[in-house]
Formats: sequence, C-alpha cells, structure tokens
Amino acid sequence: MEIKIVKTTNLKEKTKEDALAFGVHFTDHMFMMDYTEGIGWHDATIMPYGPIELMPSSMVLHYAQEVFEGLKAYKTPNGETQLFRPQENLKRMNRSNERMCIPQIDEDFVLEALKTLVKLDENWIPNSPGTSLYIRPFVFATDPFIGVRVSKQYKFMIIMSPVGSYYKGGMAPERIYVEDEYARTVRGGTGEAKCGGNYAGGLAAQQKVSTKGFEQILWLDGVERKYIEEVGTSNVFFLIDDVFVTPSLSGTILPGITRKSVIELLKHWGKTVAERRITIDELYEAYQQGRIQEAFATGTAAVISPIGTLGWKDIEMTFNNGEIGEYAQKIYDTLYGMQTGNVADQLNWIVKI
Amino acid sequence: MEIKIVKTTNLKEKTKEDALAFGVHFTDHMFMMDYTEGIGWHDATIMPYGPIELMPSSMVLHYAQEVFEGLKAYKTPNGETQLFRPQENLKRMNRSNERMCIPQIDEDFVLEALKTLVKLDENWIPNSPGTSLYIRPFVFATDPFIGVRVSKQYKFMIIMSPVGSYYKGGMAPERIYVEDEYARTVRGGTGEAKCGGNYAGGLAAQQKVSTKGFEQILWLDGVERKYIEEVGTSNVFFLIDDVFVTPSLSGTILPGITRKSVIELLKHWGKTVAERRITIDELYEAYQQGRIQEAFATGTAAVISPIGTLGWKDIEMTFNNGEIGEYAQKIYDTLYGMQTGNVADQLNWIVKI
Repeated sequence: MEIKIVKTTNLKEKTKEDALAFGVHFTDHMFMMDYTEGIGWHDATIMPYGPIELMPSSMVLHYAQEVFEGLKAYKTPNGETQLFRPQENLKRMNRSNERMCIPQIDEDFVLEALKTLVKLDENWIPNSPGTSLYIRPFVFATDPFIGVRVSKQYKFMIIMSPVGSYYKGGMAPERIYVEDEYARTVRGGTGEAKCGGNYAGGLAAQQKVSTKGFEQILWLDGVERKYIEEVGTSNVFFLIDDVFVTPSLSGTILPGITRKSVIELLKHWGKTVAERRITIDELYEAYQQGRIQEAFATGTAAVISPIGTLGWKDIEMTFNNGEIGEYAQKIYDTLYGMQTGNVADQLNWIVKI
Repeated sequence: MEIKIVKTTNLKEKTKEDALAFGVHFTDHMFMMDYTEGIGWHDATIMPYGPIELMPSSMVLHYAQEVFEGLKAYKTPNGETQLFRPQENLKRMNRSNERMCIPQIDEDFVLEALKTLVKLDENWIPNSPGTSLYIRPFVFATDPFIGVRVSKQYKFMIIMSPVGSYYKGGMAPERIYVEDEYARTVRGGTGEAKCGGNYAGGLAAQQKVSTKGFEQILWLDGVERKYIEEVGTSNVFFLIDDVFVTPSLSGTILPGITRKSVIELLKHWGKTVAERRITIDELYEAYQQGRIQEAFATGTAAVISPIGTLGWKDIEMTFNNGEIGEYAQKIYDTLYGMQTGNVADQLNWIVKI
C-alpha cells in the first residue's frame, strides 16, 4: 500500500520546551488508514493534524472496541532521530487486536508509516532533558451500527505529542496505595490487552487514592485479592534480598515493553530477576524484616517511577528512605540514555530514522 | 437549560417496515449537549442526524470513558406515542456515570429532551408487530488529552433507530453456551455499569461460541467460575419447581430494567421469584432431575429470548423441548402489549408523549 502525503500549509507554533506537559500538544501531521470488511486496510494517508468525522452510531462510542499503543521518538546529541523497540509495540498491538476482535495490522507497513510521519514532523522532537516525542498509534471501530457484534469497519491512526516528563516535576518517589475494593481485571478478561476499557475502569480507584493523598494505585488480582499485579498503568519491580521480583505475566497483566527491557537490562548486568507471583502479605513480611531494598514502576511514559511509600490498609511502608533507589536511577539513566543516544545501544534496541 | 431545535431541511426516506434490521437506520434528528468542567452541561441542541467532529486525541477513542442506555418508543393502536419506564434508564445511566467518573446528567431535563426528540421524529416509529423505535442515549469523554485521567469534557447524545426484532426471525428459542475461558467482569470491576468496555471485552467469547454453533454466551462469575451471571447482554431466568430463579444483583451483573419489570410482573401475578446465586452445577442437577420447566433471557432489545438449548462442556441441556415456554410467551405478550398499548398498564410503567 502506498502512503498518500498531504502536507499542512499552516505550520503550528511549537510550545516552549520548558512548558511541555504530557499529551496536550500535537504535531503538524497525523497518519490515518481505514479498514473495511472484504477490502482490508486502505487509504493510508498522512495529513494535517485535525478533527475527524465520525457517525454518532460509530461502534467505538458505544462498545469501546478500541486498542492503543504508546512509544517515543528522541533526538540524539548528533541530531539524529531514533525510536526505542517500535516493533515490540506493533507486535503487542496485534496481540491486543486479537483479544478485542480487531483485524491485524501489517507491522512492517505500519512501522514504515510511523517512521515517515516522525521524519516529516521531526522538528517537533524536543531536546531538553526528560523530554521526547510521544507517539500514539490507535485503532477503533467505526461501523455505524448499534447492535453488539464485532465491527466491520475500523480506523487506525497515529498522532504525536511533544512531551515533558509524564509525572509533573520529573522523577520523584511516588506514594502508592494498595487497592482492595476495585479490581482492574480478572483472568479471562482483557487485562493483558491495551484496550480502552481497562483504563476507564481504573479511573474510580485512581480518584479514590487521590483523596487519600496517594498518587497511584497498586492493583491486586481480581480473584484472590492478594497477588500484586500492576501500579497504576505501569508494571512494578521490588528489589528483595538482591533479587528483582516482578509479577509474572499471568494473563491479567499488561506485558510492558519497559518491563521487558528492564528485565533484559538487569540480566545483562548479571542481576537476578524473578518473574513470579508475589502476594501483598509476602511483601509486607519482607518489609518488616528490612529485606526490601527498593521498589519502582516501569512504563513508556515515565520510564521508571520510584515508589517511595506504599500504603496498605492503615500501614505505610517506606522504601529506601523515600528516596530514589540506586537501581531506579541507574536503569532510568541507562534506558533514557540509550533512547537519546547518550549511552551505547548494547542490546540492539534502537531503530534510527 | 433551553433546547435549541434545528430542524432538518432534508427528510430522509424511511426503510420499509418489513426490511427493518436492528440499529442500522437512524431518524432525521438527534440530541446533543456538551459538558465542560467548571461550566457543566451546556448547548443542548436537537439537530439533523449526521456526523460529529472529534479530535483524534479525544479521550473516548483511547480510554473508553463512555456509558450508554437503550430504551424504546412505541405507537399504540390509537396512534399515541409512548415510552416504557424511561426514568429507570436515566437513573441507571447516572449510576453507570458514577462508576465511570462521568458527570451526572439532570434526569428530568434529559427526559424532556428525549420526549421532545421522539415527538419530532414520531413518524419514524414503526407499527408492525415486533417493531419499535430504539432510543440510544450515550455519553463519552471528548477531552483532547492522551494522559490517563478523568476527562474534563463530555458529549451526551441521543440517537434513534427504527428497529425490527433484535434477533433475526423474531422470538425463537436460542442456543446458549456456558463460557468457562473468558470472563465478562469481576467484583470490583465495571460489571454493573453499562459501559463500553464490558461489551468490547465480550466479543471474543461471542465469536468463540458462534464457531461452536451457539448464538449467545452464558457468563459465569469471574472469581469461582461457577455462579451464573448473564446471557450475552441480557439477564437470565430459570423456572425451577415453579420458582423463577434469577441471579441476584451482586455488583457484577447489569441491573436490567426488563429484569426488574419481569420480577415485578411475576410477583403481580402471584408467582414466586428468587433472586439468588445459582451455580451451573445446581442448574445441571435440576436439569437431570427434570425440574427445569423453562429458561429465558430478558433485555430491552429483545424483551424476552427463550433459551432452547444450553451447552456446557460436552453436555447439551434442552429446556421445554426446545420450544418457547409458557411464561416466556406470556411475559413477552404482556410486556410488549403494555409497551404498544394493547394491554392495560396495570403497573404504571408507561409514559405517554
């Protein structure tokens, strides 16, 4: 398929880099293609960023058949543009699509489209420390039909947003609270797909912990309510007795690309990583015994978020004196360093544009 | 708030009543209002039915913060237009909104808007047996922001579709299969909210049972995988030893308005209804003992769907010889009769326009 390119005649003014928030500003162009049953994906176009027309009966507005991804582009000190493991995002998107009955995308073609779009808007990639160009591929059901069934029409889009740090004020230890009322998902549900419903369902819990003075939720499993699953929209790691413990991918946990990269990086460094089930009780016992060295969350948006405090019922556990841990800092510096071309790409994760 | 009315200058051609499907055709007009944080709901407008403009960053396309309702308008033999318990739908919408962190709507105002819209397009209400005008109120997040948080902007809309029977070929006993791989929801999840994510998550199971030669899923609870919850997108009733048994509203089940009406109607008739937890094992045991007299599902779209066959693992249970049960027929005739003004409204459920 060829990509039609319609360039904007009206370049937007860029936000100052020190005023960048997350996900508020968008670049000059976007990518769009449509899917029609019996025809497949068609009309791949890069066009000026702007509103789209949807029928109010479009299935996505009623039944949330939708999947998204998130990755970033970075500028190196030499002025090169590069991506971090983009193939992993497109592979995961297809796994999410399968779960949500959305047609597969051609990963190679979409990677080319993505690179073409980034290249066209590369002067939107910010340079200051902590900044990047956030790339959001997403797909949603557009069939103008309000019965419950799989849609026969979809739109796939890529939009891009120059971003500062995801968490206001940059990397700082967060206050996390263990959620025991709301559940994010359950085995057999959509927990390992990056679909909209998982995020909408989590908002009430997020509001609840905010009122308690915490920033994020630590989710427990939906069945036994004791196994640790995720933190907010990130994966989680605990350094216990020199072993990096992270919940295993049991079907309910998002298979994070930062999670995967952190595991591979730690192993590359000769560290021990255990992907296994861990209960909140085991964690608390280890905490009481002084065996937890540090804790952090991992995700594309923030890369690494150190966990300073973990609230559970009336207990508050503090890790590493509430400060950024040695490994949280080291992993962040290495990953963000690789992403921005300041640290050698020893693991072959960088795709240059 | 006043409702601005912009009438279409281009009336559409109506579909012939015998060619009506479900949710495919829409009337001449729609209702729309917007919500902005700090302002509230504003710009209530009835306008010609047609496409809407959304930014591709609109939160609903990424995080599925969305809720919908479904109800119907009917023509009586005297040519009057009437609704069935519309206040119940708007109450439920507000309960769903609360779970999904969407601002409350003014139920009285929305009912007035809905009546005004139905009145304007009342010549779209079909007359033939089994037909009606399906009304779809829905609300979704429009904030052009791609971080995960509660949206600060929403759109509430009402669209309407003249419909034939939801199930092709009219009321006929269905083949249902007990799902034991996928889960619809779990306690603490969004199961009792009418939100998009619940429906998207169920599509894969629906596809799976289709390939096995069944029409709908019977969902079990997400924790123990043994308690009966819903059938497809409907509630379910079993007549066992002259008692109508339906799963109790435990927090994971949609509180159906047809479910509620069927319970009230059966009690009005002096029948015994048990809202309680029931396992698939208990059901099978009752089946083997010949104690199940009939089974049916209830919902707005189909009103009553008799269950002819229930597949579970390699077992097929057949109820009432695979024929429409006495009560399935009697309840359908009564409810649809009340809705269309052919049966007296003894329970005060009808709202005339």
